[in-house]
Amino acid sequence: MPIPVIFSEVNSIQQYQVQINNGIEKFCSELNGRPVELYEPLRYTLSLGGKRMRPLLTMLACDLFDGDAAIALNPALGIELFHNFSLIHDDILDDAPLRRNKPTIHQKWNRNIAILSGDALLVKAYELICNSSVPSERKIEILKVFNQVALLVCEGQQLDMNYEKASVIIISQYIKMIELKTAVLLAGSLKIGALIGGAKEEDAKNIYEFGKNIGIAFQLQDDILDVYANEEKFGKQKGGDIIANKKTFLLLKALELSGHNAYKKEELQQWIYAPQFDAKHKIEAVTAIYEFFNVKKIAEDEMMNYYKKGLSFLNQLPVNAQKKENLISLVESLIVREV
Amino acid sequence: MPIPVIFSEVNSIQQYQVQINNGIEKFCSELNGRPVELYEPLRYTLSLGGKRMRPLLTMLACDLFDGDAAIALNPALGIELFHNFSLIHDDILDDAPLRRNKPTIHQKWNRNIAILSGDALLVKAYELICNSSVPSERKIEILKVFNQVALLVCEGQQLDMNYEKASVIIISQYIKMIELKTAVLLAGSLKIGALIGGAKEEDAKNIYEFGKNIGIAFQLQDDILDVYANEEKFGKQKGGDIIANKKTFLLLKALELSGHNAYKKEELQQWIYAPQFDAKHKIEAVTAIYEFFNVKKIAEDEMMNYYKKGLSFLNQLPVNAQKKENLISLVESLIVREV
Repeated sequence: MPIPVIFSEVNSIQQYQVQINNGIEKFCSELNGRPVELYEPLRYTLSLGGKRMRPLLTMLACDLFDGDAAIALNPALGIELFHNFSLIHDDILDDAPLRRNKPTIHQKWNRNIAILSGDALLVKAYELICNSSVPSERKIEILKVFNQVALLVCEGQQLDMNYEKASVIIISQYIKMIELKTAVLLAGSLKIGALIGGAKEEDAKNIYEFGKNIGIAFQLQDDILDVYANEEKFGKQKGGDIIANKKTFLLLKALELSGHNAYKKEELQQWIYAPQFDAKHKIEAVTAIYEFFNVKKIAEDEMMNYYKKGLSFLNQLPVNAQKKENLISLVESLIVREV
Repeated sequence: MPIPVIFSEVNSIQQYQVQINNGIEKFCSELNGRPVELYEPLRYTLSLGGKRMRPLLTMLACDLFDGDAAIALNPALGIELFHNFSLIHDDILDDAPLRRNKPTIHQKWNRNIAILSGDALLVKAYELICNSSVPSERKIEILKVFNQVALLVCEGQQLDMNYEKASVIIISQYIKMIELKTAVLLAGSLKIGALIGGAKEEDAKNIYEFGKNIGIAFQLQDDILDVYANEEKFGKQKGGDIIANKKTFLLLKALELSGHNAYKKEELQQWIYAPQFDAKHKIEAVTAIYEFFNVKKIAEDEMMNYYKKGLSFLNQLPVNAQKKENLISLVESLIVREV
């Protein structure tokens, strides 16, 4: 009787989401220490929402191994706090004025408050994991995964800063950067959930690889969507990456392929270095170069390769097939959005 | 035979210092990940040295309860990393150009690198604690102490920023700020060592209170030394706090006492708000006001009160009297410097 199983899974996804949202709300309401300048920005950031997909992945991965997802809730919330900590500090590094359409902390308060409240949030993330009811041995194990992933995220952020300034970046460097900056946290969220659920080391490794590859696919999808998305569905202006000369997979691939075509290379370089330009005109011209080199198709193939590679790791897990299917559906709905 | 015991203690202090220095060196040599922009600043900071008294206190506290100090080494090093993390971020907040007479990270590299490498160092601190050979249950216990102390340090730093801008600060606020910003980390270093050594909860609390009160005494001593130190012994220029209008215990107490003396109050305010002044002249004049209100003696009494209060907590510990004496001697040599 597969249908009731599906329903119960769908229900449990919604239940987990409710538990996560309630958990964040409870955390915020208890975040009333002094001085307020330290804690108010954290309540503000966490109240801006977001999809909260990382904690959901943690709870689902726990459930996948028939663990008690309730035990995974606090570590899952800890991962969501870590994600928000990294956004707060990244926004300082990028000098970003907005996050989720609201002023960033360093914009609304100031830079020092953003640094310090970010630090406090990272400690709070550890606190949630340490204070969870996961047995001590397992808790140390998940803390080690958490440490490792947290360091990789810092490395990815530093690489991103380096690459922004570098003149030449090759595709493999770009993929490594997005792996570290984005994909490993999705991977770690799943691995931590799996370990809480009682997964064996090998299975935990496989679910990590699933998350990592899906995460890379997610970022490549993002690069494609920025140029080719249906604007209404995607909800943001097309071509922002082209205007900002952002070193996406598409641009890097076009630069690579133009190595054998001096004329196209010069055309692309001229657009990149143009001190002034009409935005619409630049987007059209660069998109035409992308089309010339068939860059969209190459990016989609690359994305699909990572996606399929991710699935192959998931398929190795000795868990209920229906639960796997449901996890895939969820990941697709969260991550792989329509072009 | 007390003499051999003293000798063996003195030896163990030196041994611990060697182990700590070697441990930091080993940590730095293994800190060779990529990108170098993330890790090179950390090797630089840690190589600048410092007294490394916090890890020493951790190892001594472990030994005080007859624990194996070797097990405390990695958590002790983790505390030293945390201390350095907080210095890196504090130096950004204060825009400090120098630390230990060398350029700060944000000065030598840039602010973004200082933020991010600081973050990585905080994670590395957790990693050292998590990877230590302390039994899992105890490890979780010390991680909880570490989390708590780390948050208090953030709160103290935020209070310090608030108070810098505030026009009126009362003594009790100042004491609370230095307690959080400085004293609780000394307290936590001792408590964590004690817990690793097998201390009972009540004894761990008492050694925390010992450290906290000694830490406040230490900061008050620092305020006094800045004005009254023997320059040769203290090794820095006298009166720096007066020139910068730093809200030290001495200044706050003088402001408080001048509440009943309109003439002296105006004189003090004039020096504080003077847009231009001769440094030597200002130091002499403000010191004269301090003398008028007997502020040095009041500060020394306050310092001695915290010092004695600290000792009263130490004295309650059911541990070897000679070890206690040796810890006191060490704390005095590290913390209470000659006026």
